[in-house]
Amino acid sequence: MAPDGSGGAGPVVAVDIGGTSIKAGVFGADGRLGPVDRTATPPAGTDGAPVIEAVEGIVRRLSGGAPPAAVGVVVPGIIDDAAGVAVHAENLGWHDVALRDLLATRLGCPVAVGHDVRAGGLAEHRAGALRGAVNGAFLPVGTGIAAALVLDGRVFAADGYAGEIGHVDVGHSLECACGGRGCLEAIASAAAVARRYAVATGTPVAGSRDVAELVRRGDPAAVAVWDDALDALAYGLSLLTGVVAPTVVAIGGGLGESPDLVLRPLAGRLAARLTFQRPPRIVAAELGDRAGCVGAGLLARELVT
Amino acid sequence: MAPDGSGGAGPVVAVDIGGTSIKAGVFGADGRLGPVDRTATPPAGTDGAPVIEAVEGIVRRLSGGAPPAAVGVVVPGIIDDAAGVAVHAENLGWHDVALRDLLATRLGCPVAVGHDVRAGGLAEHRAGALRGAVNGAFLPVGTGIAAALVLDGRVFAADGYAGEIGHVDVGHSLECACGGRGCLEAIASAAAVARRYAVATGTPVAGSRDVAELVRRGDPAAVAVWDDALDALAYGLSLLTGVVAPTVVAIGGGLGESPDLVLRPLAGRLAARLTFQRPPRIVAAELGDRAGCVGAGLLARELVT
Repeated sequence: MAPDGSGGAGPVVAVDIGGTSIKAGVFGADGRLGPVDRTATPPAGTDGAPVIEAVEGIVRRLSGGAPPAAVGVVVPGIIDDAAGVAVHAENLGWHDVALRDLLATRLGCPVAVGHDVRAGGLAEHRAGALRGAVNGAFLPVGTGIAAALVLDGRVFAADGYAGEIGHVDVGHSLECACGGRGCLEAIASAAAVARRYAVATGTPVAGSRDVAELVRRGDPAAVAVWDDALDALAYGLSLLTGVVAPTVVAIGGGLGESPDLVLRPLAGRLAARLTFQRPPRIVAAELGDRAGCVGAGLLARELVT
Repeated sequence: MAPDGSGGAGPVVAVDIGGTSIKAGVFGADGRLGPVDRTATPPAGTDGAPVIEAVEGIVRRLSGGAPPAAVGVVVPGIIDDAAGVAVHAENLGWHDVALRDLLATRLGCPVAVGHDVRAGGLAEHRAGALRGAVNGAFLPVGTGIAAALVLDGRVFAADGYAGEIGHVDVGHSLECACGGRGCLEAIASAAAVARRYAVATGTPVAGSRDVAELVRRGDPAAVAVWDDALDALAYGLSLLTGVVAPTVVAIGGGLGESPDLVLRPLAGRLAARLTFQRPPRIVAAELGDRAGCVGAGLLARELVT
């Protein structure tokens, strides 16, 4: 990093670290993300160091030799965006890792650290399905479920604890990986839908998309599992509606890939749960699995004046 | 009102219109509310006009002849603070009443219109139990239940629809006045506690304070009713914690008058419902039933430069 804290002559690089893969790309001055590079996330090891080394290597490769102008990194878990600290990222083996300072030292440029879902919400708000919304929510329904809340025009973080709608009790008896019971995520995530279908039928499936295809063919077990997921999601949306009253909710993640089986049924079930509350529009997210990376780029771009 | 939109030489007057009584007082330049004047709320009539006339009379009396410098009025229901419109105030017979403009014309001074609970939250944030909180909630548990959310240091309104935690489904089978079923308010409001005790025992009580006294004496029916209310409130708080993660929740209203039977039990039951989430401190609200009026004064004061 230059003595004034500014970065190098290279590009802005955006990185989205997931439990399965690390997605990264160059984020242009025009606000567009270049081709997305995908690398398998290395095993976390005891201290998460292999993941940090992998990120360093990917950024150096993408910036083509020149030190990057800035880097944005987004991560799942409890992330304190303001402090740049990964408070708790189970899949990556990180607990209280000062990610921003650590990467800034290694890479010699300013680094922004954010939460993958909130960054995705920022991206959907600036350039996707939440464009123009004063109050909205981005709800990726994938391996897990969390919401990015846009409140009064800004993404709301609460020190990293906001939007944990995946772990509210929606009244079923299934255990959740978090240690709780009844969590929305345990019955309605894309992973839960695939898992519950496999458990119900003894037939493993690759993911929720396979279950969706079986629903379209009228497979009763698939219909039952899908139905439970939609009921639970409608419950979760009724809670979001009651507490923060978004005008629009953008569904993403694995379940968002089957909008025909999600958007209208969800809107109907939500409406049945509301009385005087204002129902949000339920729409498909627009940026797909690039949302987190675009958000990382937006966060990094703010560091470059 | 003077041609430049400024008010008269009189005081700032604060008014809190409730379903039972209208509380009002002079709000000093030092941010203190004078003695609170209480008037029974007149029957709404067909168009809510008697309530507006009563407010006009009270303000004229309190401002002692001189036109007031500004007036703040807070109201229950769905209130669009920004537009100054009572979208829906059931108890007062108001639907889409342009309260701010109507009163400004009658009183000849600038008028601020707000929501009673959000105004109370503003008051608790500026001068009460939420002082210094970046993210907090004011939860009056009275005739009904609604939360005022302080998010990133500001009271969050969502066009009047925020904080309706009283009407989220907490999983019981009782009907609610809103037309829903399972609402928090139907089992845990101070009114519900008194009503459920009377139904269970056939013995009417004046209010939740009487039930609290019976709980202290070990009356089994009172203990059961109180227990249900605390469980439901803990559920409601777990939802607030998951979605907006306040660091402190200030309990007010009728149930807040029995802090010994509410604060610690509620904190314990909430903790049992959380896993990785950050538990808020549960404290007693500090401004009692003056909170709404103080908030009305703060809103009016902002109009006087």
